[in-house]
Formats: sequence, structure tokens, C-alpha cells
Amino acid sequence: MSYSSKRIEQAVHEISKLPGIGQKTALRLALHILKRPEEDAISLADALVNLRTKTIYCNKCHNISDAALCSICANPKRNENLLCVVEDVRDVMALENTGNFNGLYHVLGGLISPLDGVGPSDLNIATLIKKVSEDSIDEVVLALNTTMEGDTTNFYIFRKLKDLPAKITTIARGIAVGDELEYADEITLGRSIAQRIPYEQSLPKHS
Amino acid sequence: MSYSSKRIEQAVHEISKLPGIGQKTALRLALHILKRPEEDAISLADALVNLRTKTIYCNKCHNISDAALCSICANPKRNENLLCVVEDVRDVMALENTGNFNGLYHVLGGLISPLDGVGPSDLNIATLIKKVSEDSIDEVVLALNTTMEGDTTNFYIFRKLKDLPAKITTIARGIAVGDELEYADEITLGRSIAQRIPYEQSLPKHS
Repeated sequence: MSYSSKRIEQAVHEISKLPGIGQKTALRLALHILKRPEEDAISLADALVNLRTKTIYCNKCHNISDAALCSICANPKRNENLLCVVEDVRDVMALENTGNFNGLYHVLGGLISPLDGVGPSDLNIATLIKKVSEDSIDEVVLALNTTMEGDTTNFYIFRKLKDLPAKITTIARGIAVGDELEYADEITLGRSIAQRIPYEQSLPKHS
Repeated sequence: MSYSSKRIEQAVHEISKLPGIGQKTALRLALHILKRPEEDAISLADALVNLRTKTIYCNKCHNISDAALCSICANPKRNENLLCVVEDVRDVMALENTGNFNGLYHVLGGLISPLDGVGPSDLNIATLIKKVSEDSIDEVVLALNTTMEGDTTNFYIFRKLKDLPAKITTIARGIAVGDELEYADEITLGRSIAQRIPYEQSLPKHS
């Protein structure tokens, strides 16, 4: 595309580097910014630079944080002996929103993916093993996505941790609440029937 | 959603003000920025601020420009007597990409939309009328979208210009090149047959 202004061309070029945003969307966003007050563009720009330059990661769980210890790890009411392994901050937020988990997290920062050149050493796996070996962790809950990368990472972590005393569990897979059986995929429905649980356990509880 | 860091919350808040970007997408974009080098965030931020604070509009056609006169208006090879009225810079770019128009543009900066509180005085219509009255314009091509707002704006401009000597035309509506008749909507197909043209005119030409 040929732009009538170098500034808009530059803005479109930068915006379209973001994932899932093509040139047309980038141009639409740039035109929106042009129509809004100057302060809006400045506060957006400031927020982006602050995010990148000032965000730090929790020393303990590697989650995005404003301090050396994140608010979850610093909370004395959380169960320190229960550890949930997740891919990134989005999963922490999703689990926190359920209000059903009172342990601590361990954020891997990604999943093992040989195709993308991501190996175990690129993730926060060494600190996980150290933590489970040295701290008094009773249970490690693996809560990764059910993709090939998630399964590979689960299995890698399981092999590293299996000789340690901590119990290793994984989140339940099955038919989503509110879903209809007839529309469920075979694998999910198959797992769901194979891994059936006593009815009493299906009632809401908090761990 | 509850965020583990105020900086990420602030960034998500600012990013999700952009049109078509919700909180989940904003978080995905924020996490992407966190994973990329610091320079990427800074150049994106700079491009946005420069765009908003340094972009100017062409004095003649109101298109986004880097100078008081845009590159199209400043081009002596363009036909000054032919004027194409468009909504915004995206339409200028789309028409320029065709390579089929050699006149000048007049960018309205929007369409008349009473529901959104946009009236004729909010758009660059007064300067259009002045230009057509005072300059030697032979033909004004209305090239607005076929929405209710586009039709209203077309009609408003037509009424203002109809007593002036310039010919008023509108871009052809019909079956898109490559489209199949059986899938075309009735209105488009109806217009297309009612406003049929001599075959020779359908052959590619440049204006």
C-alpha cells in the first residue's frame, strides 16, 4: 500500500508488527488515534513503554509483578504446600477468577516447542524442580493447555518430578459445564467417561 | 479481571480503548510486547505519538499529509479539473492502488450521520463547495460507501453542487469483477442490469 504520509506509514508498520494485526487493521487503528485527543495517544504510548521497561517478574513464581514478590506469593493466607504449574500470566488470572484455588503458582513462561526452538532451558523449569526438591511441596498441579506442546511439557516435568515426594496431579479434562454431550468431541467425551468420578466429588468444593 | 501488576493493568486499559480490541486481545498484545525487545515497545510508542502530534492535513484536499500540500495535490501531472470526493484516507489509498484515477481528491473526513451527531458542518463540505464554485472543476466524482450515511452525504453534496457548472458523477455500482451472478444480492444485480453500459465501455480504460 502507498501512504500519503510517512508518519502514518511508520505507525502502520509498527502497529502491524503486533500479533494478529494486519496492515488494514493497523491503518484503522492509526486513523482512530488521529481522531482522538493527543493525550490519548500519549497515555497509550506511556503505558506501553512503562509496561516493557518497568515490569518485573516475581522472584518466586515468575509471574508478572510490580514487586520482587508478587501479591499472591506474598499473601500469608495462601497454601504454600500446593503448587500449580501454568504457562503464563493469563492462566494465573483465569484460575484466580474461579476463586477455587488457594495454593501458589509457578509460571513457566511458555511451553516446550521444538518447532519454535523453545527447549526446557528456555522455560522456568529448573527453578520448579529446585522448589519442589527443597521446599515442602505436597502437591504439584499441572495446568497446561491440552496441545501437543502442553502434553510434551507436562510429560517432561512429570519425569523430572516423579521421584520426589510431592504428589503430581493434573486438572480434570471433561465435558465443560453447560455443554451438551451430543456436541462434545470424541476425545473429550471418551476421557470424561473413562475418568469418571464419584458423584459426591462433582459437587462444588474449594481446595 | 484482576491483574498481578498495575503496569499490565494500565497497558491493557489503554490498549483496549482502541476500536475492536477487547480486554483479552489487549492482554495478548501486552504479553507480546513484554516478550519482545525493549526497542520494539519504544519505537511503537514513538510512532504513535509522532503520528498524533506531527501529522498534518493537506490544505487543499484535507488528506493526511507530511506537508501543507500533499503529494497528490502537489503533483503537476494530475488533472486539476477532476475531483473525487471520498470519506477518508483509506479510500484515497484504495483508489490510488487501482492506478485508474488521475484527478485530485477531496477528503470529507467522515459521513453525515445524525445518529452519531455528525452533521455537514463537522465535515469538509464547505471547502468542497467553495472549491467547485471558484476553481475550474469539470467533474466531481462522488465515491462514498453505499451505506445510509454514504447515500445521505451523497445527496446533500449533490443538492449543494447541482446548480454549479461542474458535472456530478458517482462511481459505478454493480457486480464485482470475478463475482458470480447467482450469488449477487438483488439490489446490486438489479442496479447492474438497469444501469447497463455499452460493451465497449466495459473494456479497461484510464481516466
